[in-house]
This record gives sequence, C-alpha cells and structure tokens, in this order.
Amino acid sequence: MRAAVMYGAGDVRFEERPAPRIVQPTDAVIRISATCICGSDLWSYRGINQIKEPTPFGHEYCGVVEEVGSAVTSVKRGQFVIGSFFASDNTCQHCQAGYQSSCQHRELVGGAQAPLLRVPLADGTLVALPEVPPSELIPSLLALSDVMGTGWFAAEAASVKPGATVAVVGDGAVGLLAVLSARQLGAARVIAVSRNPSRQKLAREFGATDILPERGDEAVARIKELTKGIGADSVLECVGTQESLMQAIQSTRPGGSIGYVGVPHGVALDGQQLFYALVRLHGGPAPVRRYLPNLIDLVVSGKINPGKVFDLTLPLDQVAEGYRAMDQRRAIKTLLRP
Amino acid sequence: MRAAVMYGAGDVRFEERPAPRIVQPTDAVIRISATCICGSDLWSYRGINQIKEPTPFGHEYCGVVEEVGSAVTSVKRGQFVIGSFFASDNTCQHCQAGYQSSCQHRELVGGAQAPLLRVPLADGTLVALPEVPPSELIPSLLALSDVMGTGWFAAEAASVKPGATVAVVGDGAVGLLAVLSARQLGAARVIAVSRNPSRQKLAREFGATDILPERGDEAVARIKELTKGIGADSVLECVGTQESLMQAIQSTRPGGSIGYVGVPHGVALDGQQLFYALVRLHGGPAPVRRYLPNLIDLVVSGKINPGKVFDLTLPLDQVAEGYRAMDQRRAIKTLLRP
Repeated sequence: MRAAVMYGAGDVRFEERPAPRIVQPTDAVIRISATCICGSDLWSYRGINQIKEPTPFGHEYCGVVEEVGSAVTSVKRGQFVIGSFFASDNTCQHCQAGYQSSCQHRELVGGAQAPLLRVPLADGTLVALPEVPPSELIPSLLALSDVMGTGWFAAEAASVKPGATVAVVGDGAVGLLAVLSARQLGAARVIAVSRNPSRQKLAREFGATDILPERGDEAVARIKELTKGIGADSVLECVGTQESLMQAIQSTRPGGSIGYVGVPHGVALDGQQLFYALVRLHGGPAPVRRYLPNLIDLVVSGKINPGKVFDLTLPLDQVAEGYRAMDQRRAIKTLLRP
Repeated sequence: MRAAVMYGAGDVRFEERPAPRIVQPTDAVIRISATCICGSDLWSYRGINQIKEPTPFGHEYCGVVEEVGSAVTSVKRGQFVIGSFFASDNTCQHCQAGYQSSCQHRELVGGAQAPLLRVPLADGTLVALPEVPPSELIPSLLALSDVMGTGWFAAEAASVKPGATVAVVGDGAVGLLAVLSARQLGAARVIAVSRNPSRQKLAREFGATDILPERGDEAVARIKELTKGIGADSVLECVGTQESLMQAIQSTRPGGSIGYVGVPHGVALDGQQLFYALVRLHGGPAPVRRYLPNLIDLVVSGKINPGKVFDLTLPLDQVAEGYRAMDQRRAIKTLLRP
C-alpha cells in the first residue's frame, strides 16, 4: 500500500509501505474511511519535534474492520469503528477512572495516514457503530478520533458549568471544537480569541458569543473588561506555548479552572505566579475513548457537526499538500480520503 | 507596647512599637489572646525572602475586640474573634465565590506578634464567637487563623473524597493539619511522609494510617507501591519546593488532584511533565475566611483539636527563642502569649 511518511521538517512523502497485519491476537486491522492531519503533526513538520528516522504519520482514523486477531471479541469484520490515538485496554484502573490516555497498557496508534491501519488492543480501543454510517457523517465521526474529544476534554477539565463564562485560547481545530464543547456543556458566554475571518465565522457557528482579535496581554485585558474585572470561570487552552498558557492563567478568576490540551512546548510555569493566581489546572492527552459513545450519539443524532473544521479535503496521495496548507494556515484542518 | 520586629535573617527583636489604632472606619483593634510563628515566617528568618526594613511580624491571631471603627457593624468591643491573615470584605465577587484570599480589597494583616493588632475590613474579616471561650480552647482556635484553614484548603483543593487514598507531603504544622483535614473529609487512607518521631506521632494522632520515612523519589516509589502502582487519589503538598511539588505530581494517579499550599520558592513546573501526568492542580493562599465558621464549630464541639501542633508555648517577649526553636526544628510550631 502507499502511505504518508514523515522524513523531516517540511518533508512528507507518499510512498510504498508494507500493509499492516495482525501482530498480537488483540489487534485489529481497519480499512480507513477517512483520516486527517493533526495540529500536533505540525510540531514535527515544522522541525520543533525532531524526526530521527522516516516515520509513518497520522493518528486520527475511522473505518471498517478488515481483520481481527484471535482474542478480539467486541468488534468484527465489516463493522464501522472509531478509536483514539492512544490504544487502551479500557479495563485497567486508569481506564476505569476515565483516563484511558494513561492506560497501563497504552500504545500510541501511528501510521493512520494510510489505507490500512493496525489498531492494538482493539476491544478496548475501538467503538463500533450499529451500522456503517452515511458518507456525509464521516467527517464529523472522524473528528471524534482526536480533535473533538480533545476539545471536549478541555471543556470538562476546565469544569465548564451551565451559565458559565468561558474563554478559549487558540483558534485551531481543537480551539474551535472547544467552543462547541463549552456550549454543549451549557456555557452562557464563550469568548473566542481569533483574528482570522474564516475561523471567527466557524467559532460563531459553534456558539462563540464574543470574538476578540487581541493577543497576549491585550486579550487578557479585554477578557477582564468583558467580565467586569473578575476573569472567566473557565479557560480552555488549546495551543501549548508559554504565551498561551500565561494568557489562560491570567484570564481566569481565582477559583476558576483552566483545561489545557495543547501539548506544551518550551513551557515552564512559575510556581509563585500560579500560586497567587489561585486557579485550577487540569489537562494532558485527552482520554478520548471516554467520550466516544456520547459523542457518536451527538453526531449521529445531528446535535453536533464537528466535521465543519475540515475546510480542505484531499485524496490521500496529496497528503504533502495537506500539510503545506495547514502549515501556512490556508486550511484549519485537512481531511484525507484514501 | 512591645512587639516582634524582624530586622533580617536570624534577627527578630522584641521592642517598643507604637500601639495600633483605628485608621479606617472599617478597622478594628483587637487585644491578642494568643499568636504564633508561621512556617512561612521562616522564609524571611532564613534569609530566603529579603527583609528591606525592620518589619513587625506575625499574621495569626485571635483575641478580644478592643475598639472598632465607626463603620463596623458585625463585631463589637468585648467579643472574642478570629480572622485570617488576609483581610477581606467578604462581599466582592471573589469573596462570594469563596476566594476571600483574592478579595478585590484584600489587605495583608501584619504585626500580630504583639499585644494589640489592627485588623482592616473588620466586618468581612473577623468571625466572632458567641462567648469568650475557655482558655484551653485558645490554641485550637488560634490555629484556625491560618495553619488549620490552610491544611483544610489543601484537602479541599485536592478534592479529598470519602474513601480516598491521600498522601501528604510535608510534616510541618500545615502538613500535619492537612492529615487531620483529609480524615475529616473522609479519606480512608492517609499516607504521611516524615522521619521525625514527634511529628510521626502527631500525624498518627491526627489520623495518618501510614508513615513513610523515605524522601523524594524513594517516597514516590513507596506511595506507588502502597497503591499497587496506581498513585494516590489526592496529594496535599505543604512545603513549596521544587522537590516537594515534583514528589506530589509523581505520586498522584492520572485524574487525581494535588492541593498545594506551601508558598512556592524557586519552583518552575515543566509543561510537558505536568501535561503527561494528567493531574489536577489547585492551590494558593488559603481562603481561610471561608472555613472559619465550620472550623470554629468543629473546635468548640471538641471534634478536632488542631492546637496540638503547638509543642512550644512561650511568653511573647521570648519570641526570638520561638523562631530559633522552629528554625532548628526543635519545635513544630510556637505559640506566643502576650
């Protein structure tokens, strides 16, 4: 098969790779219906994360089960499934506590930008739909594999409550879906920070009530102004830089909560600054598996349409252009069809 | 009057000072029944916090109202009162949200190691008892002014739930009272870290179920071992160093909570380490005022006896010896009687 391989900064190739096969009896191999490029893939594409050897890329996927290992009992050939970027057994104590991204047997799923994908721990990782969904639902279902679940985790980690005032830092796909998640959890006011017209428009469609074009300290000042000097009840940090985290901390009221889901790069939090801010901090790799059943229901019933974040769709063999478009911020998020 | 003044590292003097008087109409002046020395006072005594000019010290107090300003309505001359180290109006939005230590009009109370003390914002800050308590209750009531409320906040910030497994980092007075607080909130297992026999004994009296003499990484390994590799549900960090915070982060299970109340000194938290730990972090200057009514009830009804942390009682004029004893860890906490 032909699949995406990252060779180094700015160098993604679509080339011949061995097709994945069952390695462990708990594996499944699925035929990808759609995959996509993650904001976190750009850390490598931009050379911020080093690529040591050519690496198959992609960790977001949905598709039809092609084959299962001998120990797999809960999914079978022909079913349409979605899974998270972390394979998890869904039975260990961390999984049972809802933290499948810390599963004691977790494995990173890699190489999803391909027609076929091996998924370890298939019983714990994959959630099957009752039937193969219509094609117009595929983008929204694909979004549940990472970006929507991550936005949802940001909102839950920031304890978004009905009636709350929420600010979202970051206008990438996760930030936009964090807006949607905050509204789904009942936020009365959602302040999004963006100066990009197409992202502003999508933020409004997802329920943002206020859009700020300011950045950094100026954005903090505006959020304080909009909240009469108090600060937001919940701030959803979806970038992962020192500036974005500081912006989140300074925008939150004492006793308020920050959910942070952007993988931190070069971030060091000053202990005293955090201490005197009196904020709550929770975040990390989203336990996407926890949210899949509920989010699948919301998509299938038409209550949410997170697939709107895909503003560029390409055939998989144009994956390199997909990376370029996101790197240059011409696209929010690229969907790839094998 | 004569009162304690810090001149610099290791230099506390008991000397003549002007008696405090009403400055604002919202002030009260109280006659101190007992005061004490805080672990945080030692940061200055040890030269870690710089003293720029001779400074009256002490911020923990209880006593009898001597005089009130013309605007004070809720406390009156002759009443026995307790207040927090942060004066707060108890009416602003931060106070109403339970974060009186972030009151929009907060003022640090200073100079309590004295016979008389000016307390700003008396209506918001002071809680009066129905009658002047018997002298044997004074140590426990004094403890509510900071150290007990701070331990309680550590337990609440770490979301201690009935049945939980809790670890406490730090065997100072706050750490010991964090043990007591965790048990009051229903923790089934409380692991205290201490290698000092008298502190170990007090930790057991306050309800610790396990005492570890290990430190740092070894303590983390033991806590992991005691929790079958999972980590504690809640960790109460009561020191404020890089090592103690890292110990807390590494001892907590994914999705578990850390309450940190030791003022951080030289602490920088690595963003990625925190991210992948998936812990919840909350802490800061304790909103002691929030807890005063409940904690006064628990003391007066004999349910808790936090005054046990005072293992040295001195007349106020021996305040310098009180600092020395705590600095040298001969005393857990020194109570001073004017």
